Amino acid sequence: MENKQNILIIGAGLCGSLLALRMGQRGYNVTVYEMRPDLRKTDISAGRSINLAFSDRGNKAMKLVGIEDKVKALCIPMNGRMIHDKEGNTFMSNYSGRDHEYINSISRGGLNALLLDEAEALENVTIHFNKKCKSVNFENTTAHFQDYNTKEEFVEDADIIIATDGAGSALRKSYYLGKKFLFSYSQNYLTHGYKELSILPSETGDYKTFKNALHIWPRGDFMVIALPNLDGSFTVTLFLSYDEGEYNFNNLTTPEMVTEFFKKEFPDALELMPNLVEDFFENPTAPLGTVKCSPWNFKGNTLLMGDSAHAIVPFYGQGMNASFEDVVEFDAILHQHKDLKLDKSGWETIFKTYSKTRKKDTDAIADLAIDNFHEMKDHVGQAIFQEKRKIEMALEKAFPEEYSSKYSLVTFNEHIGYREAMLRGRAQDKAILNMLADNDITATNLEDQTYLKTLLDKVKNETNNILDDDNVAKTMHH
Amino acid sequence: MENKQNILIIGAGLCGSLLALRMGQRGYNVTVYEMRPDLRKTDISAGRSINLAFSDRGNKAMKLVGIEDKVKALCIPMNGRMIHDKEGNTFMSNYSGRDHEYINSISRGGLNALLLDEAEALENVTIHFNKKCKSVNFENTTAHFQDYNTKEEFVEDADIIIATDGAGSALRKSYYLGKKFLFSYSQNYLTHGYKELSILPSETGDYKTFKNALHIWPRGDFMVIALPNLDGSFTVTLFLSYDEGEYNFNNLTTPEMVTEFFKKEFPDALELMPNLVEDFFENPTAPLGTVKCSPWNFKGNTLLMGDSAHAIVPFYGQGMNASFEDVVEFDAILHQHKDLKLDKSGWETIFKTYSKTRKKDTDAIADLAIDNFHEMKDHVGQAIFQEKRKIEMALEKAFPEEYSSKYSLVTFNEHIGYREAMLRGRAQDKAILNMLADNDITATNLEDQTYLKTLLDKVKNETNNILDDDNVAKTMHH
Repeated sequence: MENKQNILIIGAGLCGSLLALRMGQRGYNVTVYEMRPDLRKTDISAGRSINLAFSDRGNKAMKLVGIEDKVKALCIPMNGRMIHDKEGNTFMSNYSGRDHEYINSISRGGLNALLLDEAEALENVTIHFNKKCKSVNFENTTAHFQDYNTKEEFVEDADIIIATDGAGSALRKSYYLGKKFLFSYSQNYLTHGYKELSILPSETGDYKTFKNALHIWPRGDFMVIALPNLDGSFTVTLFLSYDEGEYNFNNLTTPEMVTEFFKKEFPDALELMPNLVEDFFENPTAPLGTVKCSPWNFKGNTLLMGDSAHAIVPFYGQGMNASFEDVVEFDAILHQHKDLKLDKSGWETIFKTYSKTRKKDTDAIADLAIDNFHEMKDHVGQAIFQEKRKIEMALEKAFPEEYSSKYSLVTFNEHIGYREAMLRGRAQDKAILNMLADNDITATNLEDQTYLKTLLDKVKNETNNILDDDNVAKTMHH
Repeated sequence: MENKQNILIIGAGLCGSLLALRMGQRGYNVTVYEMRPDLRKTDISAGRSINLAFSDRGNKAMKLVGIEDKVKALCIPMNGRMIHDKEGNTFMSNYSGRDHEYINSISRGGLNALLLDEAEALENVTIHFNKKCKSVNFENTTAHFQDYNTKEEFVEDADIIIATDGAGSALRKSYYLGKKFLFSYSQNYLTHGYKELSILPSETGDYKTFKNALHIWPRGDFMVIALPNLDGSFTVTLFLSYDEGEYNFNNLTTPEMVTEFFKKEFPDALELMPNLVEDFFENPTAPLGTVKCSPWNFKGNTLLMGDSAHAIVPFYGQGMNASFEDVVEFDAILHQHKDLKLDKSGWETIFKTYSKTRKKDTDAIADLAIDNFHEMKDHVGQAIFQEKRKIEMALEKAFPEEYSSKYSLVTFNEHIGYREAMLRGRAQDKAILNMLADNDITATNLEDQTYLKTLLDKVKNETNNILDDDNVAKTMHH
């Protein structure tokens, strides 16, 4: 039987453990090698985001593998952005005008542990920890590992190898260094890095600030955000330039300077963070990079999936969701080709079909995530942007079936791809911003239903004009 | 004296030899190491483009170093594109409506030899051949070389090292592999490769087809082009997919198939190329890649320049011109900082200032060159594009001071940067194409001066509208 093929998965993070679970459910013999120790037995969170945004595209994958309810128990709904200004004033900006649309804060470790448990419960799935992949011989479909404890090195082969080993992927490195085929590759860093901090629970174990929001302290060139955890704490992240501006990661070298910076820029956050200085100097500063590459596969032998194929910056809260959606898309392609003989040529067809449908969407979310970096640290504090959001919330509320903002298209419309969401969403943003700038529309009278209907028609027309004009011109610059 | 600083240049190609000449003229001690033998003594053209497009930005550099007239003697003017259809019909599409604007075909070897001669004539410039750079220690400002003949390895140091060693740059590789700083890097390949062929002179030594044009056989998914050489021959290049379409580089494996392909698609070219099959199987197929990276410098120690910093595809005929313009820009920055003390900190300021002003423009020409790939193989054969060109030629002719097409902005307006040319040029293209598609304007009555003035105003207005709308929206996606 075809499904008795051996699938080797490199990496048991969020994407790898989900893929192992799904391929296990499909009946394949699945072996997973993970470089880290088993996170269910060791605390290995240091330096990694300990909570993440989980939304509809990710949930689509949880439904596929039948664990939607178990995941829901790990989620803290966040209904919108709570913006904190320098004076400590806050205002809430909902993610959607439709009440049932919100995102969630979820523990990376908790979700990963659940996926590992579910995958390991299948008898045809085996997961090995502490085995680091050093390289992949993609021509022979073999991977070279080293055991972290014994230092012993060994080679494993399989019918196919799928690398879900993240932004530093060993398979991707083997593609790049192997020079056996033309490999398009990019790594692009922002000028900013990030550092994780924390707001601990109050003495009574309560949340020190509003629980059901993604908190943002936007300051134009830099920002702080905070997401809630189930234990009453918030994981706080500072996004700041390495070397530009008055305060930056390179010059914040003393406790006094760090405190001065927060006192000046984030006084209300500082009050909640007596542990700021300790966190700041204990936790690493990490870079923010985007990785794109092509092709993802080598013939019918090997395939990149998740962050190994498309690492993105975190500002759309879509990194994990995009990787989960990879598995959904891959599963759909397997289903479409269920009558195909799974020899090398069959797998090559599947890998190529998957890459062709998927890459345009992961390219789009990578670009959208960079857009949102600027939106979060800067635009959310600007009047014209706030007016746009007010209009969009009113439209979504009044016309829930007819209007979705770019944010909603990307986050809550899981049945369209990221690329379609990007093209329509950017055109809408451009339409609304230009009509606001030209005083063609205003963000007043939004309770007047007749005016709202006019507004809806104007936004739709102008958006379609922009899309049409771009379409005529797009042959000129691909 | 400051100028007695030692500058080590890696690579004596077009950019390196020009840089050596200019730095020599400025009085620095310049040492150049080139991996290849001296091209003035050996024929090493195999596999490289033997002629190139030379235009105003390149000529700006020739003026700077005072060899404009000597270069002119190597040039063959090309006034436009001569388009060849499948039936062998041809039509000429001029590059500009202004008669004095044209591009030139120039011999790579001839121009490089001239630059080497001029540089070596300066007593403070020394050029070593057959010395391959293996790596650069950018922290110590030393470069590691190997002599091609003796295999001896040696290390050279300098006050600064500038790498002009092309798309496969050893310095860039050292930046990438060194992992000492965040290095943004991309290499992107087109689906197409290229192969050089030739149209030899007639038996009487004449050109077999029209001399003063860049010939194009556009076929939608692939194309052939030809540029004249001084000896009466044309260098012909086939651009074709590696593996897509009925005919591609992977399946053109026999003389019969190659001949069949040319007979079907390029019958008039085939008649001029009795040597086709021999050329096809003797010459390599080479990839078409774009390289971008950042930063270009490491502190005040090392700098990438020319193709090593920004390799582009050849379709705008701007690769050499962009690298020459690098030297002009770098020279201008040196001039601006002529009172700066040239210690490490001084050089760092110069390198950073240069990168900041220059990178936006080299990014733009990289993207424009990919636009032009699609324009040349496809759009030039389409009615709407031909109408746009007719209108633009008429506008340039009637209003030479007021209108320049994107092609003219990029190629002949050497006093504006590539980025400005791209933004205005793309907006103009979008304006004209959309007005043509909406029947707002037509490509008729172009001899009517009153209509032409209306046309000019419409194009300018619509272009400005597009630029304004993009400006309002651009804060949303950087």
